[in-house]
Amino acid sequence: MPKLTFFSSKHFLVLSLALNVSLILRLIVHEGEEPHNHSCFGPQTTGASIARTNSNMLISSSSSSNSTTCTTGSGSRVINLDHGDPRVYERFWRQSGEKSTIIIPGWQSMSYFSDVTNICWFLEAEFAREVVRLHTVVGNAVTEGRHIVVGTGSSQLFLAALYALSPTDAPEPISVVCATPYYSSYPSMTNHLKSGLYQWGGDAESFEKEGPYIELVTSPNNPDGHARISKVNRSQGFLVHDLAYYWPQYTPISAPADHDLTLFTVSKSTGHAGMRIGWALVKDKEVAKKMTKFIELNTIGVSKDSQLRAAKVLRAVSDSWEQGNPQEGESFFKFSHKLMANRWKQLRLVVEHSDLFSLPKFSPAFCTFFKEVLEPQPAFVWLKCEGNVEDCESFLRAHNILTRSGKHFGVSPKYVRISMLDTDENFSHFLERLSSIKS
Amino acid sequence: MPKLTFFSSKHFLVLSLALNVSLILRLIVHEGEEPHNHSCFGPQTTGASIARTNSNMLISSSSSSNSTTCTTGSGSRVINLDHGDPRVYERFWRQSGEKSTIIIPGWQSMSYFSDVTNICWFLEAEFAREVVRLHTVVGNAVTEGRHIVVGTGSSQLFLAALYALSPTDAPEPISVVCATPYYSSYPSMTNHLKSGLYQWGGDAESFEKEGPYIELVTSPNNPDGHARISKVNRSQGFLVHDLAYYWPQYTPISAPADHDLTLFTVSKSTGHAGMRIGWALVKDKEVAKKMTKFIELNTIGVSKDSQLRAAKVLRAVSDSWEQGNPQEGESFFKFSHKLMANRWKQLRLVVEHSDLFSLPKFSPAFCTFFKEVLEPQPAFVWLKCEGNVEDCESFLRAHNILTRSGKHFGVSPKYVRISMLDTDENFSHFLERLSSIKS
Repeated sequence: MPKLTFFSSKHFLVLSLALNVSLILRLIVHEGEEPHNHSCFGPQTTGASIARTNSNMLISSSSSSNSTTCTTGSGSRVINLDHGDPRVYERFWRQSGEKSTIIIPGWQSMSYFSDVTNICWFLEAEFAREVVRLHTVVGNAVTEGRHIVVGTGSSQLFLAALYALSPTDAPEPISVVCATPYYSSYPSMTNHLKSGLYQWGGDAESFEKEGPYIELVTSPNNPDGHARISKVNRSQGFLVHDLAYYWPQYTPISAPADHDLTLFTVSKSTGHAGMRIGWALVKDKEVAKKMTKFIELNTIGVSKDSQLRAAKVLRAVSDSWEQGNPQEGESFFKFSHKLMANRWKQLRLVVEHSDLFSLPKFSPAFCTFFKEVLEPQPAFVWLKCEGNVEDCESFLRAHNILTRSGKHFGVSPKYVRISMLDTDENFSHFLERLSSIKS
Repeated sequence: MPKLTFFSSKHFLVLSLALNVSLILRLIVHEGEEPHNHSCFGPQTTGASIARTNSNMLISSSSSSNSTTCTTGSGSRVINLDHGDPRVYERFWRQSGEKSTIIIPGWQSMSYFSDVTNICWFLEAEFAREVVRLHTVVGNAVTEGRHIVVGTGSSQLFLAALYALSPTDAPEPISVVCATPYYSSYPSMTNHLKSGLYQWGGDAESFEKEGPYIELVTSPNNPDGHARISKVNRSQGFLVHDLAYYWPQYTPISAPADHDLTLFTVSKSTGHAGMRIGWALVKDKEVAKKMTKFIELNTIGVSKDSQLRAAKVLRAVSDSWEQGNPQEGESFFKFSHKLMANRWKQLRLVVEHSDLFSLPKFSPAFCTFFKEVLEPQPAFVWLKCEGNVEDCESFLRAHNILTRSGKHFGVSPKYVRISMLDTDENFSHFLERLSSIKS
């Protein structure tokens, strides 16, 4: 056990205490309340493997409301951190009580239309107001002079952006590129309909084709958490900035993002993935119109219920920061930052004392939101298997840890992406399992 | 004024009384409560015309929460019945009170996943249960042996069906056909991404290409309200049945629909267009899987908030029929059937006494739901301009009535589609305006 010899007894104590505190907290706060949190994996494992066969994208959950059998031995329990389901924030929202509860009577929001005077005619004014307010509070994006387009998650807005930016009369599809490692779903989302408008062009670094192109700039990047800027940098490029993770809990806010087309989503900002609400800030009016047109042809608008609920949740986030009354509870960003900081600290403890794994290195930077120098603490770990392990995903899978292989992100299978946003319970089990793996 | 001479004083009295009753009712029930119901058309007209330039599909509303100027002269008021916004049911849902109100706390439904053991892993179990129950109550569709796939409206499910039914390795895109007059959005929804998987093939009646094809069977049909069966009827056809209007308020229910792939939506059944919730009943497991995969790639699932709200609303509809307690209020289908019957009666009164217009003829049939012989009363009027008027849309537009031309439905511009689902107020104004048009 060469790795374990590096653990001092102090390290063990810290890790063990952290695990216990988080498990006890979990028992106090959640026990018996959470329908989706069993330690049962009989049916899920089946469900998970079926889903994974169909897709490299999302797939399978570490929880289910339908499970009937359980595996109790901690080593045989499957820890699924393949997807980025943001369960980590549930505790905050439980504590927030009525401030984030929405009531919708049966007669409300029945029409297709929200405001026909707006380019995005299905955009709820209340949601738009809270988007602007939150960006002002956080300082992570310029909203002046931007059109807001709401989408069924930022996925739909990504497709809407491709549709809007593709030339309609080009002899061949426009290339869509992104520097590796890129979000594993970009290629299949771009290519699944074999569109004649756009097609996946691969790694932006090696892209050399002449003419127009669309470059995706994900910053901080999914999967590796690094801040990014455009790589291709030629005159005929359209840039789509996917800033899903540009929030204070994940990365120091350096300045308000000021791009042509920027995507955000509640899934990663507040943790409400089930709402399926994202938004785009769009400089060009014609692009905003075409994106709106795509959403009209795709889904005739976006759920009003979720827009109204998202408005309430974003308002609660802004209020929790601006009012800053400790009796009213912690601010969302303080809660989530502390939580991510704690998880990363625990993870580093485990990884630093292993010669099997390594983590990306990040430079601390001044965060204009927290007004402190802080380190990035991404929503995913981009873990590298060191030494002879060539297929990190298979290696971890043999230890019942499900992750996503680097090959889906356009790079070596020595890397895997691991979610840092799962429940406290799963995260604790993950750390425990990881620290027990011997070379 | 040749038309007007056909009106007997009795007819005028009936029409006038009907208009007054509906206007008075409207004032009692709605006044001051409805944010989206102004008689103001300054800004909207602009919004409407911009939106219509972009699309032949939806666009523009007869209402807005943002209007500041009003046109009071009844003749100059623009009556927009171009789209099928189902505002007509709002009154029922106001009366239903808490039975249809949903409360969602901030911590609920945060995960991407609903049930990973289900093929459609983002389908809320509660919604699926209410779908099955409602079809059992109404008797309009077989649910046994079917997979339910939920979608962001039935539009998304239509696209999911195209994706699922298209061969992946075909040398050319599969043809998508529908008999004329067909829903005006089918061609643009099919072709907007220039997919290499499928392409619009036009009128099913004249389709003669060899090999596989997808035929859309909309029954009752949008725009003309007629019951339909497949037209092409060859061995290599995949059928998609769009049964958005197969509900008792629109047409006599003859038998439970028993097809391979059937689409429904809350927009037209209960009037909740803003929810963007539809569902597909799918016989083949692999088709259900591929449709689910499409929705994953398109929007990573469907709003849980709207699924939960839809479950509540569908339950209220089933309860209102099964409990049948008059003190608890009328059943939804009795309310909506009576309302549509009343509108069609008034419309027939106006049109029958005009030599400018004509309506489709429908045969009464036994309705297994109401257990009576009843006549269809479609959600749209498929109006024909008789005589010399070749462009019915322009003719009505000159009288400030906005409709959708037959040319968008693959037929002659002598026809227009007019919504029968708008507010009582707009419908009354429409009848008044229509009866005042002279040849």
